[in-house]
Amino acid sequence: MKVNIADLSPAPLTYLGQVASLTLEQFQQFAACVIMAPQLLDKEQLSASAGVSVAKHHNVAAEIRARGEDPVTIMVPFSAAVKNFHTATKAHSWHEKLLTVYVTSGLLDEFFIGLASGLPKDLGPQMVTLLEDKSGRETIVQILRAAIEKDPQLGSHLALWGRRLVGDTLLLARSALLNAGTLTSDDERIEPVFTDLIGSHTRRMHELGLTA
Amino acid sequence: MKVNIADLSPAPLTYLGQVASLTLEQFQQFAACVIMAPQLLDKEQLSASAGVSVAKHHNVAAEIRARGEDPVTIMVPFSAAVKNFHTATKAHSWHEKLLTVYVTSGLLDEFFIGLASGLPKDLGPQMVTLLEDKSGRETIVQILRAAIEKDPQLGSHLALWGRRLVGDTLLLARSALLNAGTLTSDDERIEPVFTDLIGSHTRRMHELGLTA
Repeated sequence: MKVNIADLSPAPLTYLGQVASLTLEQFQQFAACVIMAPQLLDKEQLSASAGVSVAKHHNVAAEIRARGEDPVTIMVPFSAAVKNFHTATKAHSWHEKLLTVYVTSGLLDEFFIGLASGLPKDLGPQMVTLLEDKSGRETIVQILRAAIEKDPQLGSHLALWGRRLVGDTLLLARSALLNAGTLTSDDERIEPVFTDLIGSHTRRMHELGLTA
Repeated sequence: MKVNIADLSPAPLTYLGQVASLTLEQFQQFAACVIMAPQLLDKEQLSASAGVSVAKHHNVAAEIRARGEDPVTIMVPFSAAVKNFHTATKAHSWHEKLLTVYVTSGLLDEFFIGLASGLPKDLGPQMVTLLEDKSGRETIVQILRAAIEKDPQLGSHLALWGRRLVGDTLLLARSALLNAGTLTSDDERIEPVFTDLIGSHTRRMHELGLTA
């Protein structure tokens, strides 16, 4: 049975609040990558990624305001889940932090792109365009590929770290639907969605030269 | 004797490299304020400041590229001075971090606005406009004023921290001119410039309800 992910889509404002929370979290992760970068060249390039990321967040916040609501109020119901996720995925080094942004934003962007198919036509396509912009992650791919080629031990360490991240990220994705009330905790309709997400994640890990 | 600060202006590319380094540092400071903010509302508002700040940096980097140069190469000569400054002004709490951004960006923006008067007409006025945008600092004023009103002890702690920051910031300003070769280490022409900067700094501290 192929599940239509559109059936699981939250209501527009709930969706916007969740994406606003996640893009704000992603911005902070990108910004931490800039702060932790040991070389000026990496700082400079990652600052462009952070810029893309904070602009995404402000676009989503503007969508909430355009609907007459306050972004923070709309973000609050999902903030505890994001805070737990932040704590669970706390990186211990710059390379772990880079992989964290790459893996978690890859998974979550794709998850919310899928859910956008169930949104009204005046919101869904626009959110897909916004979330499909991967320009912030390209610098990370370059930096990690080069570092992993130079140091295979780092590669195997990061492969492990990547596996650890997947579980926490899928838990967050699931909690978004529980929070939105479109899924109950014993509902297995989410499983085929997760299978697809893990498939794309595996391809993204291969792009770094890592097995998922 | 009133010194004309235009006499101390670095060459255009040197100036752009220094401002690019400082705006990148300021972005990281704003971003750290977002990351450290305990409340979602403050995170959301400070993320707008961080967005303004990273856009400033990218505008300056674009000016360097428009002159056929690579921003990182042009930033390198000033990076050791900025790194020392970063270490010397390391904050120990969120409120200290907020005051650090407020005080140091206030002083340095004004210093480089003054120096812009000695730049060619196709660069100077544009840099003044860019550096005069204080919108990133307005949120900090609101947060710190409210916190200081509630907790006078925090106020006296921050007043001390502010005094400590001034010395390190003026040292960085001076090192920019030594680095540019427009000032020698025994040159006292910088003193009246510093006197003016400290005057504005005092007014900015009063805006928070603090004595400088």
